[in-house]
Amino acid sequence: MVADRAALRHNIDTMAGFAREYGMELAPHAKTTMAPALLADQLEAGAWGFTVATPSQALILREHGIERIMLANEIVDPAGLRTIAAELERDPSFEFLCFADSVAQIEIMSRHAGARPFRVLAELGQPGGRGGCRTVAGLLDVAAAAQAAPGVELAGVGGYEGTLDTADQVRAYLGDMREALDHLRVRDPILSVGGSMWFDVIGRELADCQARVLLRSGAYITHDDGIYRERTPYNRIAGELRPALEIWAHVLTTPEPGMTIVGFGKRDAPYDEGLPVPKAVRRADGESSPVKGEVVKMWDQHALLTGENDLRPGDLVSFGISHPCTAFDKWRVLPVVDERHVVVELIATYF
Amino acid sequence: MVADRAALRHNIDTMAGFAREYGMELAPHAKTTMAPALLADQLEAGAWGFTVATPSQALILREHGIERIMLANEIVDPAGLRTIAAELERDPSFEFLCFADSVAQIEIMSRHAGARPFRVLAELGQPGGRGGCRTVAGLLDVAAAAQAAPGVELAGVGGYEGTLDTADQVRAYLGDMREALDHLRVRDPILSVGGSMWFDVIGRELADCQARVLLRSGAYITHDDGIYRERTPYNRIAGELRPALEIWAHVLTTPEPGMTIVGFGKRDAPYDEGLPVPKAVRRADGESSPVKGEVVKMWDQHALLTGENDLRPGDLVSFGISHPCTAFDKWRVLPVVDERHVVVELIATYF
Repeated sequence: MVADRAALRHNIDTMAGFAREYGMELAPHAKTTMAPALLADQLEAGAWGFTVATPSQALILREHGIERIMLANEIVDPAGLRTIAAELERDPSFEFLCFADSVAQIEIMSRHAGARPFRVLAELGQPGGRGGCRTVAGLLDVAAAAQAAPGVELAGVGGYEGTLDTADQVRAYLGDMREALDHLRVRDPILSVGGSMWFDVIGRELADCQARVLLRSGAYITHDDGIYRERTPYNRIAGELRPALEIWAHVLTTPEPGMTIVGFGKRDAPYDEGLPVPKAVRRADGESSPVKGEVVKMWDQHALLTGENDLRPGDLVSFGISHPCTAFDKWRVLPVVDERHVVVELIATYF
Repeated sequence: MVADRAALRHNIDTMAGFAREYGMELAPHAKTTMAPALLADQLEAGAWGFTVATPSQALILREHGIERIMLANEIVDPAGLRTIAAELERDPSFEFLCFADSVAQIEIMSRHAGARPFRVLAELGQPGGRGGCRTVAGLLDVAAAAQAAPGVELAGVGGYEGTLDTADQVRAYLGDMREALDHLRVRDPILSVGGSMWFDVIGRELADCQARVLLRSGAYITHDDGIYRERTPYNRIAGELRPALEIWAHVLTTPEPGMTIVGFGKRDAPYDEGLPVPKAVRRADGESSPVKGEVVKMWDQHALLTGENDLRPGDLVSFGISHPCTAFDKWRVLPVVDERHVVVELIATYF
């Protein structure tokens, strides 16, 4: 797998510009890449700090000098809480936020807090969804518990709109988040939402929001040729993100007409939200041409490309991917290439 | 994720004993774990050497001093071939085998061979399957090309029976492999098959085979609580393998009745051949009890466990896994635990 330098830069600048234009701040989800070299580029483009999903991701970012971290998830792990509490005490410039959605969690956090409190965003969820309180009333109970618990401080409201199906649903959900925020007595409140699938709606709806709005978009940095290409808000508004990741693999064999077995598999490329998409073939003579067909199956170390084509054993084929979050975690080192596909940088990931 | 020391040892000894009993040799598939510490245990138990799927896996094993490697896959990558050729020249004790299923591949291999030839097993496949010649006649063409090509040497026949559905199909397939072998003029021929799903049938059918039989079983080392539990030959014959891998994760939240969100996800546990299976809960007081319910969905960093239970945020829950090959590759370091769940060793993986 390689990443295209120009596409990475374009995407980082595009999303930073979008957030600036709408008066929002970007806390890019670091879980997507866990690549400090890329986080540095995002910070330089103006990111507020970073989002993570787990205490261990937070600690990896701390080791790489990140000062502002939002753990957009419930945290109940005593070892993780104690380590973060120690880090808050050690470094006064470390800012940490996390989500909370139950009184039980607030009690656990309070038990493991240190001298500086854990700042929490009360999470609003959706019925049938993942984490988060199911109603504004439920959220207000959690918020009250956070305000009452020693070692815990309420900082605002968090949520995730990426699984919603329509702009109307997103608007209603954002309305509930703002209603919750209006009931809280918090100075300089924070409101955090996802921001990959609906940042256009979010930008418009929250333009007049008094809270500091933190977007947690992660996958935008590489975009893709799959679900994000299909679902990016740039299908509705002007602008674009560019797919930055490519898998290159050899044709191993063409055992039957219409069947091409290629040398990448589940160890190399994502397969959870759509399979890789064939793009081009490069032959031994250096000539490139488009490739037809479809990846229909992946094994641990092979993929099956079907369709009529003239591929031969030894041909090198490139594929776009779907779902960057399960692409980076398969690689400890990622080559970055320029427009001629010359490797110009090696990026380490820390999963 | 942790591995159970006693279960690992039991499985390594069990499979080594089975191969010995049937006069076969074991070339365990190293792709499963890519963990040199575990390979050392397998070697000590009598393994012939190891199977890999890619040139880079072969080179990682070479760096860890492995002398016999079978690449059970087509290889057409010039850089991989040249590096392996150089390694063959550098170290006379290095034995290398790989699969071949096309004349085009033989030509590529011949072009990149060094002073010591590449030894190949002509691969017999199945219609609609993955790699491998579709007929014995096709295999004999590839075998003849291998015997004629400078820098390539024919060593026998390889195949993979793990995707077949019935013992009759396996018997017929093994019969075709033996027929192919009978047509080849090879001294001390090798016949290699998979050996995870059908090693009972293979043991019986190949008991009188004159070739050296190399089994490539990989997943047996940890077994699982999913597909391998369902499909192991030990459901048909006396003996057992024991599931050695467990995922431990905290309950993050219980947002609705019957919904438990647990802190592991696609980054932590396999999800391609069945989802993890809940086993036990351990509470803050150290008490353990069985857990009911079913994992029905996994996100990048979360899992949804459904069913009635009394789990609470902060509870630690253990899960069995399905498909070891997509479990190890998610962890750079794997703790090994004793029967009290005390960590006794840390094992590094090299993916």
